[in-house]
Amino acid sequence: EILDRLLYCLSPKNLEGKKVLVTAGPTREHIDPVRFISNPSSGKMGYAIARAAEHRGAEVVLVTGPTNIPVPLNVTEIRVRSAREMATAVFEHMEDSHIIIKTAAVADYRPGEAAAHKIKKGADEKVLTLQKNQDILKELGARKKDQILVGFAAETQELEKNAGEKLVRKNLDMIAGNIVGESSGFETDTNQVTLFYRDGTKEPLPVMEKDAVAHILLDRIIGIKN
Amino acid sequence: EILDRLLYCLSPKNLEGKKVLVTAGPTREHIDPVRFISNPSSGKMGYAIARAAEHRGAEVVLVTGPTNIPVPLNVTEIRVRSAREMATAVFEHMEDSHIIIKTAAVADYRPGEAAAHKIKKGADEKVLTLQKNQDILKELGARKKDQILVGFAAETQELEKNAGEKLVRKNLDMIAGNIVGESSGFETDTNQVTLFYRDGTKEPLPVMEKDAVAHILLDRIIGIKN
Repeated sequence: EILDRLLYCLSPKNLEGKKVLVTAGPTREHIDPVRFISNPSSGKMGYAIARAAEHRGAEVVLVTGPTNIPVPLNVTEIRVRSAREMATAVFEHMEDSHIIIKTAAVADYRPGEAAAHKIKKGADEKVLTLQKNQDILKELGARKKDQILVGFAAETQELEKNAGEKLVRKNLDMIAGNIVGESSGFETDTNQVTLFYRDGTKEPLPVMEKDAVAHILLDRIIGIKN
Repeated sequence: EILDRLLYCLSPKNLEGKKVLVTAGPTREHIDPVRFISNPSSGKMGYAIARAAEHRGAEVVLVTGPTNIPVPLNVTEIRVRSAREMATAVFEHMEDSHIIIKTAAVADYRPGEAAAHKIKKGADEKVLTLQKNQDILKELGARKKDQILVGFAAETQELEKNAGEKLVRKNLDMIAGNIVGESSGFETDTNQVTLFYRDGTKEPLPVMEKDAVAHILLDRIIGIKN
């Protein structure tokens, strides 16, 4: 905490007066009270960005799925579980935010109907019907006025194509893409991302701590803003 | 760590020379590289038992799904992901174990076939076909010779009926049952369990720290053994 305040003192206050909305972590889409569909997102990237933005003087709201990370100092944390809960929280805070950074790994699909009680083991084979969830990031892109909107794309292949298409389709200002692997992406302290911009340019970054990625990301966002 | 060694010194060494096999945490059944079916098990109950058994002088092997808990001192930790990986590790260690305690929340079903790459969003509705996983606890019950075998049953209703039936059907020596709720079960530091024995008796315990539950459980196991 002392270290955190020291970093706060040392950071340029170039986000003073700005409201930054960050989403983080996985969502859980419940099948029954004790089973769910989820993903390995730890929330580390989002928490790192929330912390870095606070260090730069921003008012930070962090909407997060289930994680095991302590909330950064002076950051307003809103804990949610499902994609639908995340959507509600995000849309509530989007309008007066200046910068929106979506690191959350939101489930694309949810079970059609969650059972009220634990489902007992039965047949050798079961069929689970899944419904598509709302695309929160795309909806943010459609609704945004002068907010800067930044997304993340964790891919297992064709990063450039997938990230580039997402940037355009979802009306983002920037997207940070990474190939899920050993030293990057889920459940790691480091990340190797490539930043893709609206003008078609890209900026590949080396493997670095998520805290460092967070500060570069904020530097670039401030650059877009000005 | 100093506190941990103090507790070690204060604990009766009544499991000296015994090998204790503990399973903990959830399993993850992957749909694709970045999506899985899982459950909210934190692993806390299993880690508490592994730690308590080590304090009593046992050789402890902990087979655990993905958790965020540091491994207890002098405990051999084997990290697995899926139910099938857990089965392999457990069956490898069962034969020379004296006591087997299964706290892991193993997925009953897994997706029929995991995709090699991230599945792209598509239709509004998707169908996921699930295959039943092997019942590790039941298999342990079928294979066991003179091992003491203890299970856990997290239920949302009809605890006595469900736990009692599991005890008999899986050939267990004892089962700890709990209703999933605020102060008991998943992701909490406390648990409220009822112990069910082979002779049909039961012993309801009050809400207590998982460390305390662990020690009572080991006391009762030692009682069965003698």
